[in-house]
Amino acid sequence: MIKEKGILFVLSGPSGVGKGTVRKELFERKNELKYSISMTTRDKRPGEQEGVDYFYRTRDEFEHLIKQNKLLEYAKYVNNYYGTPKEYVEKMIEAGHDVFLEIEVQGALQVKENFPGGVFIFLLPPSLDELRSRIVNRGTESEKVVLNRLNAAREEIELMDAYDYVVVNDDIDRAVTKVQSIIQSEHLKRERVAKQYKKLLEVAER
Amino acid sequence: MIKEKGILFVLSGPSGVGKGTVRKELFERKNELKYSISMTTRDKRPGEQEGVDYFYRTRDEFEHLIKQNKLLEYAKYVNNYYGTPKEYVEKMIEAGHDVFLEIEVQGALQVKENFPGGVFIFLLPPSLDELRSRIVNRGTESEKVVLNRLNAAREEIELMDAYDYVVVNDDIDRAVTKVQSIIQSEHLKRERVAKQYKKLLEVAER
Repeated sequence: MIKEKGILFVLSGPSGVGKGTVRKELFERKNELKYSISMTTRDKRPGEQEGVDYFYRTRDEFEHLIKQNKLLEYAKYVNNYYGTPKEYVEKMIEAGHDVFLEIEVQGALQVKENFPGGVFIFLLPPSLDELRSRIVNRGTESEKVVLNRLNAAREEIELMDAYDYVVVNDDIDRAVTKVQSIIQSEHLKRERVAKQYKKLLEVAER
Repeated sequence: MIKEKGILFVLSGPSGVGKGTVRKELFERKNELKYSISMTTRDKRPGEQEGVDYFYRTRDEFEHLIKQNKLLEYAKYVNNYYGTPKEYVEKMIEAGHDVFLEIEVQGALQVKENFPGGVFIFLLPPSLDELRSRIVNRGTESEKVVLNRLNAAREEIELMDAYDYVVVNDDIDRAVTKVQSIIQSEHLKRERVAKQYKKLLEVAER
């Protein structure tokens, strides 16, 4: 058998587009994917587990990792850091597992800088009208917030060019199937596999 | 709806690897694919139809097309020309259809030169031993012919680097599913679709 490295897949897209739903359905279908575990400085909540829900670190530890460039991306929310530790992703990939990371657009761009070998998938709403109604239907946002988020989405969609694939989330099932086909076909790319196949064929000659 | 161009998919690989079987099964599953129709100078046989089985041309006409660079590839077998007319492929692609071309390795390399926007898939035997037994099992070849074909296969496999994807034909169903995932994911590539999506979103703003 060919020993192949895993691949980092990054799913991103504007807020409200349905990244979380797509990720959830994908994981229900494809159990061999590893979900990238985030690191945080916030307190562990009851029932949460180190290395399952998050890697929990002190603020000093987190800032040390930032300085050492050991995070694929990080951000600060409400006075706490959240980030993606590079080491976990690299270990999984070396062991042959695909890692899946669902993340906001700005975070994905940071990941791309620190891990250009990843495969970047942009999830797109069928239209801005549709995105608007999804945000409004959550019911929690004022009209002003909705407008701000739509403007942010428009700006984020301009960032699409940093991505490898674009998937329209017009239908969850269809979108997940598309992401699955991306995962499969990326493993078939010649530059990933040709060397190993050539070796395999040489062995067969003896 | 987004009006998208079609894509030319080229399936190739060493003789005996099962290209024809994979193509046949793929066409049974995916009816929207257009099969690239070849051009030939050989006589039309009973039951064959112009533009269905082949485009039939005289030797003069064919050589004229060669000079005008109107063939994606061509070769001469037993005193007759066979080739792939560029015009048919381009028309289909402009009309939004994917075109599928199953072809020998040397022909595929010619196509790549004349149509670099195509997607090139290399079908690989699981091992040279397996390829040997497939050739032997056809039962029509002498030991010397088998050895020659294996050497040719080895040389062809060295040409894998010109291809975009490598699919191992260890199992027909699995190989066809992989080719299908390549076809789907190629349509999701950002460089193919980003412009159109941006336009779509602009329209939605008004």
